[in-house]
Amino acid sequence: MVKIAIDAMGGDFGPEPIVKGCVNALKKKQFIPILVGKKSEILPLLPKRYRDKISIVETDDVISMSDAATDAVKRKESTIYIATELVKNGEADGLVSAGHSGATMTLATIRLGRLKGVSRPALVTFMPTKTGGKSILLDVGANVDSKPEHLVQFAIMGGCYAQNVMGIKEPSIGLLANGEEDSKGNEVTKATYKLLQGYPGFKGNVEGGDIFNGSCDVITCDGFIGNLVLKTSEGVASTISGLIKDYIRKSPIAITGALLMRKVFKLLKKQIDYAEIGGAPLIGIKGCAIVSHGKSNAKAMENAIYQAISYVDNHVNDHILEELEKYNEIN
Amino acid sequence: MVKIAIDAMGGDFGPEPIVKGCVNALKKKQFIPILVGKKSEILPLLPKRYRDKISIVETDDVISMSDAATDAVKRKESTIYIATELVKNGEADGLVSAGHSGATMTLATIRLGRLKGVSRPALVTFMPTKTGGKSILLDVGANVDSKPEHLVQFAIMGGCYAQNVMGIKEPSIGLLANGEEDSKGNEVTKATYKLLQGYPGFKGNVEGGDIFNGSCDVITCDGFIGNLVLKTSEGVASTISGLIKDYIRKSPIAITGALLMRKVFKLLKKQIDYAEIGGAPLIGIKGCAIVSHGKSNAKAMENAIYQAISYVDNHVNDHILEELEKYNEIN
Repeated sequence: MVKIAIDAMGGDFGPEPIVKGCVNALKKKQFIPILVGKKSEILPLLPKRYRDKISIVETDDVISMSDAATDAVKRKESTIYIATELVKNGEADGLVSAGHSGATMTLATIRLGRLKGVSRPALVTFMPTKTGGKSILLDVGANVDSKPEHLVQFAIMGGCYAQNVMGIKEPSIGLLANGEEDSKGNEVTKATYKLLQGYPGFKGNVEGGDIFNGSCDVITCDGFIGNLVLKTSEGVASTISGLIKDYIRKSPIAITGALLMRKVFKLLKKQIDYAEIGGAPLIGIKGCAIVSHGKSNAKAMENAIYQAISYVDNHVNDHILEELEKYNEIN
Repeated sequence: MVKIAIDAMGGDFGPEPIVKGCVNALKKKQFIPILVGKKSEILPLLPKRYRDKISIVETDDVISMSDAATDAVKRKESTIYIATELVKNGEADGLVSAGHSGATMTLATIRLGRLKGVSRPALVTFMPTKTGGKSILLDVGANVDSKPEHLVQFAIMGGCYAQNVMGIKEPSIGLLANGEEDSKGNEVTKATYKLLQGYPGFKGNVEGGDIFNGSCDVITCDGFIGNLVLKTSEGVASTISGLIKDYIRKSPIAITGALLMRKVFKLLKKQIDYAEIGGAPLIGIKGCAIVSHGKSNAKAMENAIYQAISYVDNHVNDHILEELEKYNEIN
């Protein structure tokens, strides 16, 4: 059975949503959770009948959001460090943390190591599409100043994830650029374009708007850019919902309208709510690490755990090794 | 009186919305419009009482969207070329075109020339903020692979625009990056940060989401990135509105709700509709050029004309020259 190490203390709201998410996941899936954190805080949150199904590794050091990611390597008693070591030692197959994301990425990369052929692991996110599906965007923040060979690896790794975890047989792959034409792009994307030409599923350049129209399953970009795209998307969505709320508040007729449209807004929220997705897999490391949002609720944590299980169960890393080798043989 | 050369043929919908926008602008503002295009198509669209208030420069060559921007320089009879020459020769003070934007930018840059001290002109766009205002984002597509000194110039030029056209006394300036901390950024933005430190109004790094929260009046970024941010924003907004429409269609109760919320949606559309803004000024050239969206309707064209008038009336270029000189003296 898959064993998942869970940083029980890292999120913005303390252990409560994390433990709750873990218990909810246990109700639906078979796996072995290992919670890392303060027993005295975790135990009271665990319903009695789950206490023997969950093991706890005791530690009381938590890396806070204001700590530097570089501290992570030194603080060997931190929840994230210990969760990573559990994966490294084979006591767990994957880890989930809603704590300091820089620390999680640094530790997972340094302590677990990169897969053979991977220069830089990438952070994966899932964007909702008009067609009701999801497109994979990577990297969304693990790297800046990526080189063309990195963007190629992101594309290949994203393809493996889409294929094996999301069950997309022949994932289409796009290169994020400032125009669809081959001639568009900056120095890095133009060089990447050449390297990806002929790769199965590669569709060429895609624009910012294409992320949401479902035209591509996987979109590769530098982490500086991916981060901006992600934060911009969240900003637009929250601005629109804020404006709607403001306007509604001012008009009694609109309040009635909003009540009637409640289900619509609920469905919409579901479509764009990150809690429905879970976390962001860090792809390209030996092992499995899901980087969750600090503000994750129980639902988000539950889904992040499913992501980890699915990542391990579907042998994503084996497929990546295979695909990278195949690509390198031809190119 | 300000004279504005208007490419009457360039938009996706032919001369109709352009001529209509021009006539509507004439009803409200005093200026001299010079329409460039086919007289035979323009005249029938002009109400008789406006015929003597508008002059037409006859030409029948129009650069289409599928033409290369580089062709623009050769096709000296094209509407965009002639409109640019009118500005160059002093027969017009500014130009507006909804035609091939690459051609407009190329011609404005090459034929009019750059302002002293400006290495690269930048395309300016306006993003709606939660606080009901607008923030200026530049560059959104004139340049890729911008260097730190370019981003500094964009910041300074954006500040001049905010101050003189938008009337913001002390505009705050942000540098678009993947995190607010000084340590965040890529090579280019980190170097830009150092160059902008101490510049009046400079607030440091801002993230993608900050574009919409009104925390900064001016945000500087590379054109590749600005284009992606802009297209992503449009993509998110159109996806959300599409999802709402889809859901509403499926539910009779929601239809009633939507009818009651009509005014809300109308206000929302106004807030995020580019027609309300007009076009994108190309800033940093000798003269004034407003690059309008190909899909501009009459309202968008009318507003683009106001932008051009306002740009000229407020002597934006003089202020830019002054500010750049001041910056270069200190640094």
